[in-house]
Amino acid sequence: MNKLLLILLGLGTVTLHAQNVQDQQGVKEIYNEALSRGKSYEMLRDLCINIGPRLSGSPGAAAAVEWSRHVMETYGFDSVWLQPVMVPHWVRGQQEIGRIVNSKKIGTVNLSVCALGGSIGTGPSGITSSVIEVKSFDELKQLGAKAVQGKIVFFNRPMDPTQINTFGAYGGAVNQRGSGAVEAAKLGAVAVIVRSMGLNQEDYPHTGSMHYEPKVPMIPALAVSTKHADLLSKLLKDEKELTVYLENHSEILDDAPSYNVVGQITGSEYKDEIIDIGGHLDSWDLAQGAHDDGAGCVQSIEVLRLFKALGIKPKRTIRAVMFMNEENGLRGGLKYAELAKAKNENHIAAIESDRGGFTPRGFTMSGTAAVKAKIKSWKPLLEPYGLSDFEQEGGGADIGPLAASGTAMIGYLPDSQRYFDIHHTPADTIDSVNKRELELGSAAMAALVFLIDRYGLK
Amino acid sequence: MNKLLLILLGLGTVTLHAQNVQDQQGVKEIYNEALSRGKSYEMLRDLCINIGPRLSGSPGAAAAVEWSRHVMETYGFDSVWLQPVMVPHWVRGQQEIGRIVNSKKIGTVNLSVCALGGSIGTGPSGITSSVIEVKSFDELKQLGAKAVQGKIVFFNRPMDPTQINTFGAYGGAVNQRGSGAVEAAKLGAVAVIVRSMGLNQEDYPHTGSMHYEPKVPMIPALAVSTKHADLLSKLLKDEKELTVYLENHSEILDDAPSYNVVGQITGSEYKDEIIDIGGHLDSWDLAQGAHDDGAGCVQSIEVLRLFKALGIKPKRTIRAVMFMNEENGLRGGLKYAELAKAKNENHIAAIESDRGGFTPRGFTMSGTAAVKAKIKSWKPLLEPYGLSDFEQEGGGADIGPLAASGTAMIGYLPDSQRYFDIHHTPADTIDSVNKRELELGSAAMAALVFLIDRYGLK
Repeated sequence: MNKLLLILLGLGTVTLHAQNVQDQQGVKEIYNEALSRGKSYEMLRDLCINIGPRLSGSPGAAAAVEWSRHVMETYGFDSVWLQPVMVPHWVRGQQEIGRIVNSKKIGTVNLSVCALGGSIGTGPSGITSSVIEVKSFDELKQLGAKAVQGKIVFFNRPMDPTQINTFGAYGGAVNQRGSGAVEAAKLGAVAVIVRSMGLNQEDYPHTGSMHYEPKVPMIPALAVSTKHADLLSKLLKDEKELTVYLENHSEILDDAPSYNVVGQITGSEYKDEIIDIGGHLDSWDLAQGAHDDGAGCVQSIEVLRLFKALGIKPKRTIRAVMFMNEENGLRGGLKYAELAKAKNENHIAAIESDRGGFTPRGFTMSGTAAVKAKIKSWKPLLEPYGLSDFEQEGGGADIGPLAASGTAMIGYLPDSQRYFDIHHTPADTIDSVNKRELELGSAAMAALVFLIDRYGLK
Repeated sequence: MNKLLLILLGLGTVTLHAQNVQDQQGVKEIYNEALSRGKSYEMLRDLCINIGPRLSGSPGAAAAVEWSRHVMETYGFDSVWLQPVMVPHWVRGQQEIGRIVNSKKIGTVNLSVCALGGSIGTGPSGITSSVIEVKSFDELKQLGAKAVQGKIVFFNRPMDPTQINTFGAYGGAVNQRGSGAVEAAKLGAVAVIVRSMGLNQEDYPHTGSMHYEPKVPMIPALAVSTKHADLLSKLLKDEKELTVYLENHSEILDDAPSYNVVGQITGSEYKDEIIDIGGHLDSWDLAQGAHDDGAGCVQSIEVLRLFKALGIKPKRTIRAVMFMNEENGLRGGLKYAELAKAKNENHIAAIESDRGGFTPRGFTMSGTAAVKAKIKSWKPLLEPYGLSDFEQEGGGADIGPLAASGTAMIGYLPDSQRYFDIHHTPADTIDSVNKRELELGSAAMAALVFLIDRYGLK
């Protein structure tokens, strides 16, 4: 080996080392700022308390749009704008009623129920019928139209508590909520009751989206609390003729105008390379939407604020995107991707935070092997901050439509254990959010954006 | 290579593979049982609600001893016994008073204070004096006796929020609580106020242990809430003559009789090789001691219960140990090690859970390189359950005295982010515990005990 080569190799090592030290220092500064002077929690508290529930098409959603714009303008991002998008407009109406009418054992008992998002109403006279319990669509089909006709179908397959990743358990049960009404209506059912998507014995129901299909009758769909699901199931074992009364006043209105809200710091060198970081601004109507997904929104804003507070001038363009309508339509995510394509924008990466503001575990990824390898190469920089899981596939619902254009999909991955205790329930409030856990999530996302901005993903 | 060798190697691989499958299956069964039919939460709820606070020497501590014995006997462990131990007996007395007497800006304002554990009382007339704020013992020494004489010293160095491991931040601040009174008294102070060991702006103070030293005057020591520490500090910037009134009625009584409580499943093959798993039964008087350390106690009992429920007959002896008096004396831990030595017992490993019932991160370890390597070799079996951090040094306070005999020290390592929001405060209640997180901790400990039992640590 000649001397020149040795010197060059030596210089290479020095450069690499210096770079690594700069990276470590950059990440450390981001965490220091987020944990000492972070604004994530203050923002989320404001959104939860002063805006509150913000279902697509509601006054709350409109207020949240203005709130996001105002917050990002106040922080002085380079540009802040709204993207108009038409969204589904569903209203719950007055408090639902669920009632066991005639139990021989316990008489008349109220059930803790709520309409699923998208459901039609029962009409003012409600629906009274006997109930048939099933655990799966297969079981329902085997029972057939003769058994189901005129009945209320009660879907009661619990989430599997033995799955360590609670999202896996959710995935294994949620088709009952989404498609239960369609499958039951095909066989002549008059309504469905769905066991709430929760792992505990709880007093409150979990709402969430359901859908109808063309040519299948639309029937009301309500969630019942896990505690009352167990009660109902127990009674049905001995009382086959048990009758339940359901009443809800939900309505599907005409689509309503709304907006995605976007804030941007424009890149200094490669401004056409865009890194998205986002969450969804809409929430269910029953709660403050603190974890789902106020957390993801304020964390995304905080990423840009951290860059500004630390004087980091990104080479690439960084956008915080508050998507509208993830919960019941995904119209915001679709619109964002549609506009990106129309403008021929180059979104090199999109990061979504929509798994709650819990303590960090890592990032999920979908993309080429090269992209995954590049992100994983930063693991030594991120692991000291509790980010050790880089093996799961996935991005996020709102950013999903960008994938078709080759954007690398990345999901912020917090711990999943507490999420389904509060998901889509009145318990999803600011009080269920831990300040440090939320801040660590913001810092994790900012650190990853910092590295993607420095090195790209190629 | 001859054929026989090839065959033998082949058999070896088959055996290894079969063993690995058995290990995976064993761990999986432990988790399934803990998450589906686990008793950790039910036990902890009972301990918190029906026993409540249990400071050493108190009626609550005595009730907790009987509770533990009863629970372990009910589960049918092979033997359950008490180890008598004399413990310090400190009582708080009636509600403390802290009051800013004469602020020019805000007049008279009550401060949220509590006596630190072990402090003497002020006497019924209280202590009224001006206040001098310091951040460190060095600063105090530089001020010297002239400045400190006759004053109340206010220790106000906050925990460092930028440390990711909150126990590190605690370690960086807690000497003010433990030794503040001694250092201030050496210079003639009449009392100390210590900023609470918490990371948030809180309304309540955190108690915790403090000590005196021979030949140094004993002066009262109180904690003040972080919110009021900040208030006091702000006022002191402009009002050097600010006067504070302190009143507490704490008393140090004679040592009292108490007990460690031990439950055992006796090993079938190597009964003289003992694996300890434990937490401490005493708690501070202000709270239910849910995370600190009811969680560690019920998790330890649950480990043995899981073995019994699954019909796992351990080769080695497994003991659940409820140590008494971790908070203000460590007498239980010392007694346990003393008895173990006197009986010439061989404790191959001791695992302590005393960092709260939060979501699992891994295990800390102290021991020989061989022991550490052996435990780390099981990482592939444990990582799917969120146990990825095996790099931190440490065991636990109660098991510490066993280390001298060569016992491998292991600490259950949950996520640390929420711990110091509730540590030693009235907020350490069952409501702050998440059922699944607690259960996952029990399962993690049981899985590790399962592997140590199967393979030993040599």
